[in-house]
Amino acid sequence: MTAGTSEAGEAASETAPESYETLLEEYRRISNVRTATGLLRWDQQVMMPEGGTPARSQQLSTLSSLAHELLTDDDVGDALDDLESRELTDEQAAVVREIRREYDRAVAVPSELVEEISTTASEALPAWEEAKAEDDFEAFAPYLRKHVELKREYAEHIDPDRDPYEVLFEDFEPCLSLERAESILASIREALVPMIEEIRESEVDLATDAFTSLGTYEEEEQEALCRDVLTTLGYPWERGRLDTASHPFSTGTTFDARVTTRFDDSDPLGSLTSTVHEFGHATYTHGLPDDAYGTPLGEDRDLSVHESQSRLWENHIGRSLAFWRGFLPTVQEHFPKAADVTPESAYEAVNQVYEDNLIRVEADELTYHLHIVIRFEIERALIRGELDVDDVPEAWNDKYEEYLGIRPETDSEGCLQDIHWSHGNFGYFPTYSLGSAMAAQLYAAAEAELGALDDEVAAGEFDALHEWLTENVHRHGARYETNELVERATGSDFTADAFVDYVTEKYGALYDLDSA
Amino acid sequence: MTAGTSEAGEAASETAPESYETLLEEYRRISNVRTATGLLRWDQQVMMPEGGTPARSQQLSTLSSLAHELLTDDDVGDALDDLESRELTDEQAAVVREIRREYDRAVAVPSELVEEISTTASEALPAWEEAKAEDDFEAFAPYLRKHVELKREYAEHIDPDRDPYEVLFEDFEPCLSLERAESILASIREALVPMIEEIRESEVDLATDAFTSLGTYEEEEQEALCRDVLTTLGYPWERGRLDTASHPFSTGTTFDARVTTRFDDSDPLGSLTSTVHEFGHATYTHGLPDDAYGTPLGEDRDLSVHESQSRLWENHIGRSLAFWRGFLPTVQEHFPKAADVTPESAYEAVNQVYEDNLIRVEADELTYHLHIVIRFEIERALIRGELDVDDVPEAWNDKYEEYLGIRPETDSEGCLQDIHWSHGNFGYFPTYSLGSAMAAQLYAAAEAELGALDDEVAAGEFDALHEWLTENVHRHGARYETNELVERATGSDFTADAFVDYVTEKYGALYDLDSA
Repeated sequence: MTAGTSEAGEAASETAPESYETLLEEYRRISNVRTATGLLRWDQQVMMPEGGTPARSQQLSTLSSLAHELLTDDDVGDALDDLESRELTDEQAAVVREIRREYDRAVAVPSELVEEISTTASEALPAWEEAKAEDDFEAFAPYLRKHVELKREYAEHIDPDRDPYEVLFEDFEPCLSLERAESILASIREALVPMIEEIRESEVDLATDAFTSLGTYEEEEQEALCRDVLTTLGYPWERGRLDTASHPFSTGTTFDARVTTRFDDSDPLGSLTSTVHEFGHATYTHGLPDDAYGTPLGEDRDLSVHESQSRLWENHIGRSLAFWRGFLPTVQEHFPKAADVTPESAYEAVNQVYEDNLIRVEADELTYHLHIVIRFEIERALIRGELDVDDVPEAWNDKYEEYLGIRPETDSEGCLQDIHWSHGNFGYFPTYSLGSAMAAQLYAAAEAELGALDDEVAAGEFDALHEWLTENVHRHGARYETNELVERATGSDFTADAFVDYVTEKYGALYDLDSA
Repeated sequence: MTAGTSEAGEAASETAPESYETLLEEYRRISNVRTATGLLRWDQQVMMPEGGTPARSQQLSTLSSLAHELLTDDDVGDALDDLESRELTDEQAAVVREIRREYDRAVAVPSELVEEISTTASEALPAWEEAKAEDDFEAFAPYLRKHVELKREYAEHIDPDRDPYEVLFEDFEPCLSLERAESILASIREALVPMIEEIRESEVDLATDAFTSLGTYEEEEQEALCRDVLTTLGYPWERGRLDTASHPFSTGTTFDARVTTRFDDSDPLGSLTSTVHEFGHATYTHGLPDDAYGTPLGEDRDLSVHESQSRLWENHIGRSLAFWRGFLPTVQEHFPKAADVTPESAYEAVNQVYEDNLIRVEADELTYHLHIVIRFEIERALIRGELDVDDVPEAWNDKYEEYLGIRPETDSEGCLQDIHWSHGNFGYFPTYSLGSAMAAQLYAAAEAELGALDDEVAAGEFDALHEWLTENVHRHGARYETNELVERATGSDFTADAFVDYVTEKYGALYDLDSA
């Protein structure tokens, strides 16, 4: 894997006004505090003994307030003002655009409100845990209502004239229009609802228990397998590590992007798939240009693009038949009991559709997006004041029935299942589905340019794909806004078309669907 | 092991002026940045992949400058000024005293000078590495000269009227008079020089190869043994971890104090002894009062006291015959090949004196202090302008001959052996020997109060000792200056008397010395 080199890194200092140097210097400090924070969070989830929480909470709180103070410093505002009155190179203009957006948001929201949201989240978390355990939505409703009110107030501070949901969405996806996002989510819903209904009625019987019927899989061997898959995919070990975490994630910098996974002793596919997913996140981080570290040109283009990289590797590589043709022998080396599994049955096992599953985090590649669409539609209605908090459970259950053909019997397995609303996060969920759609569009473009990649994937040769992704996505950092990045990489605006084509073909073949 | 509770933590807020709250609030932020820095350094030495250095260096540099900016903020100075004009409780006065000292030092030294020292250290490190490899002191001399000049300038900024070595010593040991430190080091030298000469002439043949004659010791089993010794000594695993590092250290907070060790496959005593040493450091950190976390009352009383805790556990427990009577069976469980080793021969093996060793880091409990005294005397003469850099090698070799009866044949195994001067650290070494002297005085006082502890040590019962140390040392944090802390704990001023008694008795018996 090659780390990208930014043209920007070189060009910047040649023609830069002094205020640009000041701006970058200030931003690098902010960036260092943030990546240090990332390391503290990694440690908290991976290494920290349980007793460490009181000190860690205080450390994180101090670093968070320092990052805020650095960002809202007058030096930053003055440098931005000065630069906006000057002739800038494209790279410089992109840096100013990125920092301006962050700065304006940070200064617009009173710190008392930020603290109130934080306090509400602290109180809402145990309330949510208890409400979920007791299946008691009414006990959680006041916290959800409070969060909705506070977040509407938050959005009003940033821009009182715009749709508050749009403003919140931009906290997670600042450079993609909500209009485009909504259109993509609608296309996904329109394609998947009938497809999943057809799958439910299909009589095809996939080899879903290819691995799970063979007994247990010891953790140490699963970990060795995960290390092997990372090496096969091209993970640069001198710039990363693999560890265990109860909620797998990836974090770090281009110099040190770490991945985590978790193990289920009845099924080695879980740790393997999650490792490949986190590998995708890490490749993006690794592909950011070293020489732009600490500036927006060395930072990721937000959550959907990040998720596109994890989903591309997880789904388009790790869930492909070509991959299983090549990688199955490695699995069998670690687990000789799987000697009789064929690439075809492994492929079926990783691609089964759980058409009766109510739980997002246990969903498959296909139904997953309807879980997302439902949350998106409900959040948007809540924030826009079109849905009352008290009516959330019924709206939730109706949508599950409409989109997935199943109705939760309890709120614990319905609208109380996810932690995110206790944090007060609204606008985050859509980035998961947007990432899948973008992955499909990028992978199709890579194959259009490089030719079908099945032979390389089966042979464990990923250099060409890595180079294409680094060249077209990673090395640009946050230079382009999201649609422009996709358009430059693929030749087309960002849509759900490639994703719909991909799932229609793949699942049409797997389930022998008429529509395919 | 019980975590201490500070009376201070409770008393502070009852009667505190507003400026005291402000001061504590500011200081807690500084403390959080520092402990976050400690975690980044721990990760760097224990977990970070090699490629991570560029980002980590920048993160550390940003956090260091932020801590400096927070400390030198006008709010801190104003709060100190206000508090110094008020009636304060003893605890409040101690807090003000501690922060005032730090504040005055931080504002006295121009940041350009701090940067120049830092730059010189960056350049001196590779120069020292090469000079040591090439046995070429002259190549390193210019960097050492530069460091001496800069550190004299640094000391002059802090106090132009005082001995510059004294000022530098206070960077590491701010609350112990140099006069007392010098007197302790002189007493140690006067006792040890003739004792080591006698040992050199002794015909006693200790069982030095009790373990090393038995083949190799696999790392995994050594690590399990180190975990067992930590558990035996009372390490609270819910507030710590054991990992591997090339240079073992301990770091953290009262909530999460971690230890590291390293393994030598020819000798399990190395990892075991270093684990017990770092355990001692961690017990001190664990014993600091939880409720004073982030304030001087929850911080350690500097390096000598810290080292007293590590040396107490390493030497007075881990190198005692009673300990080996109790713990040897655990070693033999892990390494059945050591079944014939007796407690007496294990005791001799961990206490052998390497009378022909030139290298500090390979020294034993006894000769170690002469390595320290030599560095102390040379540093002090350098900083006072009584010794020219060019004359360091000869002064070094003469002192080795005089104190240890051996003369280095090369500067690589002479004055170039340690890394510290390339960092520009002068005044740090003495704290090692001061720690040993303090350990002996504290352990003698504990035994005077609790009765001889041999039976408890042999039985693996350390609760009474932990309680005594927490009550008399740990829970006070930095409330008392060093000598007062020792005097309160032991009833006497801090001297080398107890240490001299301890080594005279122990090594007199081991080597059948006339002087004992």
